[in-house]
Amino acid sequence: MSLITFITDFGIKDPYVAMVKGVILKINPSVKFIDITNEVAPGDLVSASFILGETYQYFPPGSVHLVLVDPTVGSKRRAIFSFKDGHFFVGPDNGVLTPGLSSVFKIKEKIGRKSNTFDGRELFAEVAARLSLGEKMEILGEEIKDPVRISIPKPKEEKDKIIGEVIYIDRFGNLISNINGDKIKKNMEIEIKGIKIKGLSKNYSEGKENELIALVNDGFRKLEISLNRKSAASFLGVKVGEKIIVRGENG
Amino acid sequence: MSLITFITDFGIKDPYVAMVKGVILKINPSVKFIDITNEVAPGDLVSASFILGETYQYFPPGSVHLVLVDPTVGSKRRAIFSFKDGHFFVGPDNGVLTPGLSSVFKIKEKIGRKSNTFDGRELFAEVAARLSLGEKMEILGEEIKDPVRISIPKPKEEKDKIIGEVIYIDRFGNLISNINGDKIKKNMEIEIKGIKIKGLSKNYSEGKENELIALVNDGFRKLEISLNRKSAASFLGVKVGEKIIVRGENG
Amino acid sequence: MSLITFITDFGIKDPYVAMVKGVILKINPSVKFIDITNEVAPGDLVSASFILGETYQYFPPGSVHLVLVDPTVGSKRRAIFSFKDGHFFVGPDNGVLTPGLSSVFKIKEKIGRKSNTFDGRELFAEVAARLSLGEKMEILGEEIKDPVRISIPKPKEEKDKIIGEVIYIDRFGNLISNINGDKIKKNMEIEIKGIKIKGLSKNYSEGKENELIALVNDGFRKLEISLNRKSAASFLGVKVGEKIIVRGENG
Repeated sequence: MSLITFITDFGIKDPYVAMVKGVILKINPSVKFIDITNEVAPGDLVSASFILGETYQYFPPGSVHLVLVDPTVGSKRRAIFSFKDGHFFVGPDNGVLTPGLSSVFKIKEKIGRKSNTFDGRELFAEVAARLSLGEKMEILGEEIKDPVRISIPKPKEEKDKIIGEVIYIDRFGNLISNINGDKIKKNMEIEIKGIKIKGLSKNYSEGKENELIALVNDGFRKLEISLNRKSAASFLGVKVGEKIIVRGENG
Repeated sequence: MSLITFITDFGIKDPYVAMVKGVILKINPSVKFIDITNEVAPGDLVSASFILGETYQYFPPGSVHLVLVDPTVGSKRRAIFSFKDGHFFVGPDNGVLTPGLSSVFKIKEKIGRKSNTFDGRELFAEVAARLSLGEKMEILGEEIKDPVRISIPKPKEEKDKIIGEVIYIDRFGNLISNINGDKIKKNMEIEIKGIKIKGLSKNYSEGKENELIALVNDGFRKLEISLNRKSAASFLGVKVGEKIIVRGENG
Repeated sequence: MSLITFITDFGIKDPYVAMVKGVILKINPSVKFIDITNEVAPGDLVSASFILGETYQYFPPGSVHLVLVDPTVGSKRRAIFSFKDGHFFVGPDNGVLTPGLSSVFKIKEKIGRKSNTFDGRELFAEVAARLSLGEKMEILGEEIKDPVRISIPKPKEEKDKIIGEVIYIDRFGNLISNINGDKIKKNMEIEIKGIKIKGLSKNYSEGKENELIALVNDGFRKLEISLNRKSAASFLGVKVGEKIIVRGENG
């Protein structure tokens, strides 16, 4: 089996994702596609990178992950692919591939067609298709040592508290933080927007109506703030970047 | 061929559906996926159950239908699967699988990983994958006789009228009722929100501009109220639950 | 490999697309599906036709393109399929298949089931499935010479200017015109809503903040008006149909 996944900001209204898939199918007719998401906000490299980092390991080794969030397409930014943990990553050299960067290759000039606005279809599709067919990386690219990296904000650990922030809000309105679940003990106090939450809940159902709860989300394995059957994001009026403070260690 | 379908409230912005698919592909690399819908409103068991009941029979026997609408994930609700009419159904024991309940099995404790918020990925994915590979049901579960059932409201049939209600509104704004199409005769009068519709139309085009029509929707084979090229739901300001009264039998 | 693509106005909330896929899989279990888009605005034949014309050639020959935008379903409009450039096209005879019309066949009466509201599932699914299996066109239909055609507005070329219009707005808010990219020279002046844009940019990044640019979109190979990292459509308050004037030839 060969598998190509998609993380893009192309949306689902326009035929852009399908055009890329068509080009790939002409090269590798037996490939399977999985859309991780095509609903990244336009140009949002940090979210796309976060989703990539949290998701790729659930796919079989040998998968090719195509990440097409490319606000500077047509500029001099390089086109790259990478190999890490048995997975391939293909996309622009703008940091969006950060969680997949290990052995990194600049795509050779002779591959694909020069494009000003749509390298996804004219260049990256071909590279993903050929990697999915098992073609040698050295044929498609030249190794480089300086790919662009972006960093997802890291929490600050102080003497008696951890200061993190909301880095992702899902469709349920759950506020996912950058604080790893294994840092959190059962009796800690979690604060967001002046509201203090005592202790950690095990699951959503433990929350009473309109009562904020904190728990460790199994989706991303991060500390998360939620409202049982409602959107914590709407309830608090909170956006990505909002501070979350964790205090106490008597767990 | 092995086929797994998805009915979830996970949406398409987040990578949750893809994580589940990745886990399945590691177990059964040749499975095919069909998304029935991932846009069930969060926690809406009745809609998910309605969609399941109306849709599964269009797929080939042997299909596995994964239904992940699970507002009480992490609580003591059981995890189950069922076999009916040659189809498999996998999901939480909260009633969402009702139309697929026949031979029902509680998933064994040793399967999957304990999860508080994401049984879809940690438990149901594995069960669906193994059923799609033809594994015996007795290896994965123990038969139970008391699965939770929910009921979609049934119409009341009185002497000279049927009182039903809107149970689903589709993207076109068509109001789909719980009244089976075969109950309706051509000359009946249909009433909604005080507005009376005389007789049944054959198709949408028969409706004049801004004229409500009643017809039998081939999608669900139910009585439906529609507006030609516009949304009957917006026009009437109607939501799920609105009463529909059918009178007269001189068809 | 056999491949069926979808262009529909069915949306992704309802199970309608999945019902069609299920019916097809019962006939051809090894077919692959690609959703080009299911988010055509309800009944918008012109957009669906435009997307079809711009997209089908990226797929391998032998692909079957199912186009289900069918506001007059159930009326006397014919059901057809066509063969052009090695591709098959299946859908209602309402003009939506225009870019794929060449050898056109009316689907025989004996195929499928009579439906008033859902020929997609009851008729077109079977035809698409059987074409994808290589069945002879003559078995499924009778050739006709007068299919309905719709025309996407064409630009007027005058002595010293081209008058075109916006025919498609994508999710990024890019305004795609009906003026082919090869008509445009580097130093032309482009006018929309009284605003004049001097010359052609190569890519989105060349635009300064809140500065409209004109470029040739590689997605559709048409003249396009864009705003770097923002929506030109919202910025200008422009809809499909807005005039675009191109002047000067000193490229």
